[in-house]
Amino acid sequence: LYAEKKLEELGLKLGPLNEPIGNYVEYVQVGNLLFLAGHGARPYHDELGGLTTGPDGICRVGRDITVEQGYKFARYTGLNLITTMRKALGDLDRVKRVVKVLGMVCGAEGFGQHPKVIDGCTDLFVQVWGDAGRPARSAVGMYNLPNGIPVEIEAIVEVE
Amino acid sequence: LYAEKKLEELGLKLGPLNEPIGNYVEYVQVGNLLFLAGHGARPYHDELGGLTTGPDGICRVGRDITVEQGYKFARYTGLNLITTMRKALGDLDRVKRVVKVLGMVCGAEGFGQHPKVIDGCTDLFVQVWGDAGRPARSAVGMYNLPNGIPVEIEAIVEVE
Amino acid sequence: LYAEKKLEELGLKLGPLNEPIGNYVEYVQVGNLLFLAGHGARPYHDELGGLTTGPDGICRVGRDITVEQGYKFARYTGLNLITTMRKALGDLDRVKRVVKVLGMVCGAEGFGQHPKVIDGCTDLFVQVWGDAGRPARSAVGMYNLPNGIPVEIEAIVEVE
Repeated sequence: LYAEKKLEELGLKLGPLNEPIGNYVEYVQVGNLLFLAGHGARPYHDELGGLTTGPDGICRVGRDITVEQGYKFARYTGLNLITTMRKALGDLDRVKRVVKVLGMVCGAEGFGQHPKVIDGCTDLFVQVWGDAGRPARSAVGMYNLPNGIPVEIEAIVEVE
Repeated sequence: LYAEKKLEELGLKLGPLNEPIGNYVEYVQVGNLLFLAGHGARPYHDELGGLTTGPDGICRVGRDITVEQGYKFARYTGLNLITTMRKALGDLDRVKRVVKVLGMVCGAEGFGQHPKVIDGCTDLFVQVWGDAGRPARSAVGMYNLPNGIPVEIEAIVEVE
Repeated sequence: LYAEKKLEELGLKLGPLNEPIGNYVEYVQVGNLLFLAGHGARPYHDELGGLTTGPDGICRVGRDITVEQGYKFARYTGLNLITTMRKALGDLDRVKRVVKVLGMVCGAEGFGQHPKVIDGCTDLFVQVWGDAGRPARSAVGMYNLPNGIPVEIEAIVEVE
């Protein structure tokens, strides 16, 4: 159980199972592709210092939290995605390759550092799976996200 | 023709065929995956009370229409996607699983109820196909969408 | 080498190899599907007249550049995607079908002409591969993009 040992070495534990907030599921597998729903970092908000929001009720990176804090939100969003992968696959070593990540950042008005934020997620994936954890990726800026969260990430994973 | 009977029971009819507004097609199939372009609810705008827009020419959920109206836009966007699936597959019972939905909502400044809006689409898919209609999903907030529409949805479907 | 001849006829040359700006790769292939990361038009910014930005440091289509200029950004973003396909596949004729494009436009406040902008990319794909270059597509409006660019595009390609 190489990948779970890696998580342990990083001082990270798989969190509680993710619950969809709507009529959808957290993952669907078709053949050797696992499609993961958009995840946030909700179970870890306290550890992340809470959801600091501005007058619009939104937690914007570059306004309400720093890029470094945004990076941590993305890292724990990644951990949350890994929790769902564990549920889907039983064993994290069945992840053959993280194929594609769509990293969605809610940033301040003129924000442009989306890649630095979403690195929080893909750095974790690379720490856990090495080169196989490094996906094709887009990191882009949304106007707002559900319940004012600053980062939401979805992923496609190739499984064995 | 179970799925089409379900639509009938719901009082819904497949609409006119969707026409791309640009140089693209409404769907591409590769192997057993059907990729659907982003759809809006255009053929049903009149039934939905028209496209109420604000001073920026955009119909924003939570500002120009309510979440309940946004839900209906998403429902009819779902019906529009089903119309394209019908054209692509000939028979809606060939849908084995709705795999992934990306629900894009144009909301008011501090909007956070994207999941409640996009449920309009996935509730319909579940009504038509049962559990097989419940996809992995992201529901997120765009700054603006083509021609000021409030909801655009794309989908990936597994077919038999 | 039909596709590369087409590029030549169009007066276009494959550019320098794309370098990821973060912890990700430009493409991942799984089976016959090639997933391409979000690309911008960076190597061609000078040819495109530079990145004109507003007070928020962002280059917005419909505010800082025209729709026609946005179209050119999308065209060169497409060329940039083709450069990555060439690296991934060795030979552009191995592209069997451009399956899916997600075209992300950073537009002015009330912008609604995303399809006209993203046509810059898909027009190029159709010029190079004919009907096989015409994908399913979404063309939507982001709040901001990395480093203030006006257009970012990701794609899924079927390969032989």
